[in-house]
Amino acid sequence: MSNKVAVLVAGSWGTALASVLAANHPEVVLWSRNPDQVKEINEQHTNNRYLPDAQLPVNLKATSDMGEAVSGAKAVVIVAPSKAMRQVARDLSAHWQKDMLVIHATKGFETETLKRMSTVIAEELGCEEGRIVVMSGPSHAEEVVKRCPTTVVVASLTESEAVAAQDLFMNSDFRVYTNRDMVGVELAGALKNIIALGAGMSDGLGFGDNAKAALLTRGLAEITRIGVEMGANPLTFSGLAGVGDLVATATSRHSRNWRAGSMLGQGKNLDEVLDSMGMVVEGVRTTQAAHDISKKYGVQMPIADQLYHVLFLNRNPRIAVEALMGRDPKTEMETMKLETWEQWHR
Amino acid sequence: MSNKVAVLVAGSWGTALASVLAANHPEVVLWSRNPDQVKEINEQHTNNRYLPDAQLPVNLKATSDMGEAVSGAKAVVIVAPSKAMRQVARDLSAHWQKDMLVIHATKGFETETLKRMSTVIAEELGCEEGRIVVMSGPSHAEEVVKRCPTTVVVASLTESEAVAAQDLFMNSDFRVYTNRDMVGVELAGALKNIIALGAGMSDGLGFGDNAKAALLTRGLAEITRIGVEMGANPLTFSGLAGVGDLVATATSRHSRNWRAGSMLGQGKNLDEVLDSMGMVVEGVRTTQAAHDISKKYGVQMPIADQLYHVLFLNRNPRIAVEALMGRDPKTEMETMKLETWEQWHR
Repeated sequence: MSNKVAVLVAGSWGTALASVLAANHPEVVLWSRNPDQVKEINEQHTNNRYLPDAQLPVNLKATSDMGEAVSGAKAVVIVAPSKAMRQVARDLSAHWQKDMLVIHATKGFETETLKRMSTVIAEELGCEEGRIVVMSGPSHAEEVVKRCPTTVVVASLTESEAVAAQDLFMNSDFRVYTNRDMVGVELAGALKNIIALGAGMSDGLGFGDNAKAALLTRGLAEITRIGVEMGANPLTFSGLAGVGDLVATATSRHSRNWRAGSMLGQGKNLDEVLDSMGMVVEGVRTTQAAHDISKKYGVQMPIADQLYHVLFLNRNPRIAVEALMGRDPKTEMETMKLETWEQWHR
Repeated sequence: MSNKVAVLVAGSWGTALASVLAANHPEVVLWSRNPDQVKEINEQHTNNRYLPDAQLPVNLKATSDMGEAVSGAKAVVIVAPSKAMRQVARDLSAHWQKDMLVIHATKGFETETLKRMSTVIAEELGCEEGRIVVMSGPSHAEEVVKRCPTTVVVASLTESEAVAAQDLFMNSDFRVYTNRDMVGVELAGALKNIIALGAGMSDGLGFGDNAKAALLTRGLAEITRIGVEMGANPLTFSGLAGVGDLVATATSRHSRNWRAGSMLGQGKNLDEVLDSMGMVVEGVRTTQAAHDISKKYGVQMPIADQLYHVLFLNRNPRIAVEALMGRDPKTEMETMKLETWEQWHR
């Protein structure tokens, strides 16, 4: 079998994953539309716009020709922004062969349809969703390229595909767990960006560690609630794609979602925040999607709802937090249907 | 009914909880063995050893006479170090009346017997364990006295007792959730201190946010595993007493467990760490207890086990982390017994 692996889109996470793969495999090819970036990666072994200060492995090559990137690869890893995913998958379909493993590591929904990324990819490749693997977990690209210890989870409806992805990526710095709850891993990865925004907002307001922990925990409860309604295992949200990523995102200066939230807490409005970021903030789009999903499924998401008001209807962040603290007394646990458990633990 | 509430032991958390209660109730009495501390609280409204810079409410009184503190109270809140809990509960039994609500907020086990705190209290008061309420959650005392937004959970085997505790404490800065999984709340609160130690150690080693998030998440997985074996609901560990407290403890400069772990990571040994702390580090005692519990129940706790070796057998922290990263490939999810779910979600 071929030893070549292709990675689509040379953003920070795509480049970091390509560098992990380059430690395990002789031939790793990164695709980018941007010829200057391709040249920089091939000649200087850097990608300074997305990963300043990182030195990339010399066996990591770049190309702007997707056919060249994918041809003869045993696996394709897609790391496109959620907004670009359908187009990238469509472009890939012209080159993809049925024996190639497909892994994606994108967090978010297709905003217009509320579809998960694996659904979008399967539709464009014309294959079963069970062929797709998702990777998620607490993994700042800046640390991964420096080979700091990192763990992630890969999930697929087909166990053998998840195990193949685990085998492809795992090494002594990059530990990979499997999970068969693909829906849960995708939802946790996407929805946690909302809570990271909220945690940033709480920090921007100067509310302290207790408030931030409360926001993370109650945020986790509400994304778990909607996740279960959409078919996920609640315990997936306690795993690397949920709690793990939430902690890493919400407590780190590396996180764009946290930084955007923090600026909101300091009184900036959404336009000002997006202007000053200059990169995609997935949590903003996901808050919009969650607002729609919460209505569609009839599940309360009080934190996402307050954030929606702050982001899109100019609510004062302080008033949003007061509204959350002033709700009626509640129990911590939701009663869940027995079928949920039976589905995952028989 | 009386409006008096008693709080036993004027450490940082006892004093902070007493100040929350003093915002809700006219008469709150804090008991301390130390007459100088009693005098300071009554005359200067401060408790500088445990909460430097905090100004305490004037209707918070202190006494070194436990009978005086408890007499006529409608509720008693016990916040003793785990090591002192049996003696404090024994002293209380001479003054306790059966109609007094009993709430404790202590995290840890009785090391010799591995009993939970509510069991120890019920034994000493000669009452059913269902009479006891436990409070836990992400709540640094330093922030609570400043009225930063804070959420906690109260749990009891008897729902009405938990609701009474919620009613006693809840106000616009201090939000209280109920939970009927007392065992889970007590175990999560105690066992999370081990993981906080580990997170501090990872930071002390300079390993980054990915590694810390991995440690928190996989640590949560192992304390959930042992918790379920001991009768807890796994989802309690995703709540305020589990994830919430873990995040607050493991990511905060306020946490003693995190600070102790960080010093270990920097190469200090246990004796040096304990010398320089000058206060109880519950996570150290809990690691010993978890080691015994893990053997007793036959449940693997790889992180607690590595910490046990670092703390008590002088293993190099770097070697402990390498051992954790180098384990065989695993799936993220444990299969749990259907009865676990039926017990909590019927």
